[in-house]
Amino acid sequence: MAKTFKIPEATIGRLSTYSRYLERLEEKGLTTVSSGEIAAGVGVNPAQVRKDLAYFGEFGTRGVGYDVKDLYNQIMRILGLTKNWNLAIVGTGNLGTALAMYKGFKTRGFHVVALFDSDPEKIGQEINGLRIEPTEKIKDVISETAAEIGVITVPASSAQETANQLVKAGVKAILNFAPILVTVPEQVELRAVDLSVNLEFLTFRLSNR
Amino acid sequence: MAKTFKIPEATIGRLSTYSRYLERLEEKGLTTVSSGEIAAGVGVNPAQVRKDLAYFGEFGTRGVGYDVKDLYNQIMRILGLTKNWNLAIVGTGNLGTALAMYKGFKTRGFHVVALFDSDPEKIGQEINGLRIEPTEKIKDVISETAAEIGVITVPASSAQETANQLVKAGVKAILNFAPILVTVPEQVELRAVDLSVNLEFLTFRLSNR
Repeated sequence: MAKTFKIPEATIGRLSTYSRYLERLEEKGLTTVSSGEIAAGVGVNPAQVRKDLAYFGEFGTRGVGYDVKDLYNQIMRILGLTKNWNLAIVGTGNLGTALAMYKGFKTRGFHVVALFDSDPEKIGQEINGLRIEPTEKIKDVISETAAEIGVITVPASSAQETANQLVKAGVKAILNFAPILVTVPEQVELRAVDLSVNLEFLTFRLSNR
Repeated sequence: MAKTFKIPEATIGRLSTYSRYLERLEEKGLTTVSSGEIAAGVGVNPAQVRKDLAYFGEFGTRGVGYDVKDLYNQIMRILGLTKNWNLAIVGTGNLGTALAMYKGFKTRGFHVVALFDSDPEKIGQEINGLRIEPTEKIKDVISETAAEIGVITVPASSAQETANQLVKAGVKAILNFAPILVTVPEQVELRAVDLSVNLEFLTFRLSNR
């Protein structure tokens, strides 16, 4: 397996896109696909598809293309999606609730197994049949539920404290939606989501055409 | 100005990140910064910073670095963020409500000016002082409010219909959060947000270290 640090982040994002496209092809009953078809299907150029895949080995057969099912499985393995991942969401405001109910997670193997909030009025309520636990119980519940990824959807002011609690509870990775930088020890993987960035891709295109 | 199609999407995402970093430097009162400092601050290599900026011209002074305020302004101009953008959100479930209340938008010049829902019980209610309008009024309200970007947060089953309504109403761009592909005419910019992708960056790293 190639070392992570050599792989551009954009490649990972595209692998994710390719896997979704391959899944659709499989549903349609297609068995082989060319890099050109994948490229056209997802809106990149064919050389990019080949380059992205080449980081991880040789997949296709020259002149024949890729086996749809095999390539899908390989990409899912690369992305770490041949196993299920348990998520704990801290903060059950609108965004936390939306994520707890998000149907797109389950199809990729992400299962929300724990919900936390510090608001006494929310504790004990349920979202999708899952009980909201107090933030004091983060360590216990994460240990019981084997949650590996913590999702932070609390206000900026409590985001770092939440990250500390999640780290202490032993999560391997944190996805931070709070609009503030949080820091975690090196052994914990961290990704920040800024919802404005998606709009900025659009305004860039609108302003440069 | 460079042609949009030549610029890698990842560069746009990084420009967005650089601008946030430069904003923090400016707040701290710093006036100059090197590509190495920007790189260290945002976690990429210095050559990448220089390459990203080189798509758009010459910004720094060799041996001195970049003027923080000037570079910030230039990047904001490139991203189309020297003007405000009006957003219309269709679908006021948890995600739509979270976006309507998201504090990160305003600091980047994004203003939510219209909210729509098809649920009669929601119509007339307010989020952040903004009234929820019926989807039948999309064309009228978008015209009145001069909303340029439509945000789709409806269920997958009504996403394409919503996209059609937004296009008909004259939006220039659409950000689609619904977990389904929608299509729009070529003159409308489209970006799909898949919230799972953010988790997949993490599972990739966890599975390849």
